[in-house]
Amino acid sequence: MSTIWGSRYAHRAQGVQASTIRELLKVSEKPDVISFGGGLPSPDVFPVQRFEEACRKVLQEHGASALQYGATEGHEPLREMIASNMARYGILAGVDNVLITSGSQQALDLIGKLLVNTADRVVVEAPTYLGALQAFSIYGAKFVPVSIDQDGLRTGLLESSLRAGAKFMYVLPNFQNPAGVTLSEGRRHEVVLLADRYGIPIIEDDPYGQLRYEGDHLPPLIVLDRENLRRKDASMGNVVYLSTFSKTLAPGIRLAWVVAPPEVVRKLALLKQGVDLHTSSFIQYVAYEVTRDGFLDEHVKRIRAVYRERRDVMLDSLQEFFPPEAAWTHPQGGLFLWVTLPEGIDSHDLFQSALKQGVAFVPGDSFYAANHHEGRRHMRLNFSKPAPEEIREGIRRLSIAVKQHLRISRETAEAVPEIAG
Amino acid sequence: MSTIWGSRYAHRAQGVQASTIRELLKVSEKPDVISFGGGLPSPDVFPVQRFEEACRKVLQEHGASALQYGATEGHEPLREMIASNMARYGILAGVDNVLITSGSQQALDLIGKLLVNTADRVVVEAPTYLGALQAFSIYGAKFVPVSIDQDGLRTGLLESSLRAGAKFMYVLPNFQNPAGVTLSEGRRHEVVLLADRYGIPIIEDDPYGQLRYEGDHLPPLIVLDRENLRRKDASMGNVVYLSTFSKTLAPGIRLAWVVAPPEVVRKLALLKQGVDLHTSSFIQYVAYEVTRDGFLDEHVKRIRAVYRERRDVMLDSLQEFFPPEAAWTHPQGGLFLWVTLPEGIDSHDLFQSALKQGVAFVPGDSFYAANHHEGRRHMRLNFSKPAPEEIREGIRRLSIAVKQHLRISRETAEAVPEIAG
Repeated sequence: MSTIWGSRYAHRAQGVQASTIRELLKVSEKPDVISFGGGLPSPDVFPVQRFEEACRKVLQEHGASALQYGATEGHEPLREMIASNMARYGILAGVDNVLITSGSQQALDLIGKLLVNTADRVVVEAPTYLGALQAFSIYGAKFVPVSIDQDGLRTGLLESSLRAGAKFMYVLPNFQNPAGVTLSEGRRHEVVLLADRYGIPIIEDDPYGQLRYEGDHLPPLIVLDRENLRRKDASMGNVVYLSTFSKTLAPGIRLAWVVAPPEVVRKLALLKQGVDLHTSSFIQYVAYEVTRDGFLDEHVKRIRAVYRERRDVMLDSLQEFFPPEAAWTHPQGGLFLWVTLPEGIDSHDLFQSALKQGVAFVPGDSFYAANHHEGRRHMRLNFSKPAPEEIREGIRRLSIAVKQHLRISRETAEAVPEIAG
Repeated sequence: MSTIWGSRYAHRAQGVQASTIRELLKVSEKPDVISFGGGLPSPDVFPVQRFEEACRKVLQEHGASALQYGATEGHEPLREMIASNMARYGILAGVDNVLITSGSQQALDLIGKLLVNTADRVVVEAPTYLGALQAFSIYGAKFVPVSIDQDGLRTGLLESSLRAGAKFMYVLPNFQNPAGVTLSEGRRHEVVLLADRYGIPIIEDDPYGQLRYEGDHLPPLIVLDRENLRRKDASMGNVVYLSTFSKTLAPGIRLAWVVAPPEVVRKLALLKQGVDLHTSSFIQYVAYEVTRDGFLDEHVKRIRAVYRERRDVMLDSLQEFFPPEAAWTHPQGGLFLWVTLPEGIDSHDLFQSALKQGVAFVPGDSFYAANHHEGRRHMRLNFSKPAPEEIREGIRRLSIAVKQHLRISRETAEAVPEIAG
């Protein structure tokens, strides 16, 4: 056997293990299981026809350059388009502020590579995006989790963490993964001012910002940082902003971008050169053709309508089927909803029972950098992938498992005094 | 100004700078300059029409899954096809031995991430592929360069380096970048036996292996490792093998693969998850459609014919125009030829004069992990990108610059005794 390899792994690679989520989701990949587990967009809203036209056009008109090596920073027309689209959200960016990445996951890896020394403290929401924890921890990050509530990051708890020092903070302000909550406008101002006061840069991850189903768009942190602190240019401040085409076009193209000060873009690009030379030129040409002439705006409207309905079906079904002891968030957008289970129910135990009922979800503990115990009271439900009728049926099945566990939990609780007595 | 960022870079990122090559190649991007600089395939051989058909088919028949998130290890049918193609080169691999990567550059980054601790010694050829030096050095590799000659790595010099210990060795056995030389069969056996004796794993990088224009295909190190050491399975040994579609299909799709023991594939996949989740599903589906039904074999024959002619034109032109004091390699395949300049000529000085003549190349020092001075006597010439008539004209122009410098060098040499006296 090839034992030579195992003994040679670098320190950073030794502890890396398959995530519980991946293992759980594999178990749930059966045709008769309704899955609320993954974070997948619905293929119903992939603009397949438009992709086909774009591929044809790109290959016929730009085959020689679209199939050739390209610039590490990205395809210039795409960077320009992104820069000008950003302006609609108040983010004043030029082409030098934009780096194209192979999905936001690559941006997170590059940021870890750029900023994290071993044992550097990184402030994160609790819970937060698992992929960010993975990306930063490989470089040795020590996480400082700050709790969230229905208005997002609890800024009242943030100051002490920042005062103690941190390399940066990582925040998902809109329809956060996994909890679906949105950072309130008041707290956005606080986050930006606190970060500036303690000199802590902010990584603002915004994969879902455009998928808002109700309420008003709230200003991104990168914009408030500029306005509140009177910086000349949003791109020259304390915030690096990430977004992606994964949720508005398709995740299978692995295409995302970073908006950052030009010096940070340059440095990230130098690191990216050693990581993959550049993101596929062909994909970038195609994405440019797909999105241009206002197509993306129209398409996002369609996605919003589809996902809003699914969210509403999930909220209604939870109301209809779940016991009153359970609570859940009311996401104004995005893909996820977060359930707090009745006291005494462990989400991993529940997962097994749910699977028997033919429904899957992700137990909450995977999303915690620490305090996994807290996570076991929660589960993440995805409402973008399953169809409305599957959502209602899935929630019904899930409620059966929840009620079973609630009964067991009560019986155990009642039994305790007797045993104790 | 955003000075907050510069002070926060991690140690590993502080020293990262733009490569000289990139800066030099930017200078040479003028329409009247004939460039032997880049390592670009010729767009003349991109199978554009076939890509167009493949895109249409993939989107019409597999749109929902090709645009969706996919497995980190890669698209299963593509992995299977690669595994079975490998068998033709004697590499016995199953699907569990194959990991799809976003170009070989990503494989090099993942290998650095998997294996390199700070100050780990890594044995490399001198000269070698610059991108490998970039990928490994970010993780703190200390390079141990071993010289090459016309038969590749000088195995006579290798043993002392291996005896002193190293984490792994990195070798390009076929038509090496930058020198174009091929590791002889005898030396292949020696490399494999020495690596095994000293317990040093081998990373075998083979981007050009299929582009052979003369002579017989030589067995890959991964095959000799199995055969010589009587391992049951090529994939269970001491060698990780890398190859790519960049030189046979198109580099703009960023698609490559690793063949390794299953335990290494699993570990690399776990690291890849944090790096980009997975390589574009769409690109993988398309590459599968493009290559299938024997297309790749036929296409590679066409590329060989085109590049063989270009190599021959370059060799003939060097013979015709260059002074006898210069020497060059005779590559049996690949994209590059390596010139040793006459004594006293510095390739960076020559680069400036060459640019005035309207021709560009890459000075040799960029390809050395250490001993850059040695590199300044060399230059790398690419013959795949320029057309045959451009090659002849470019070599003619380059010869003018070489002869100028040869004259200056001689005058200086003659002048020295007088000054000394």
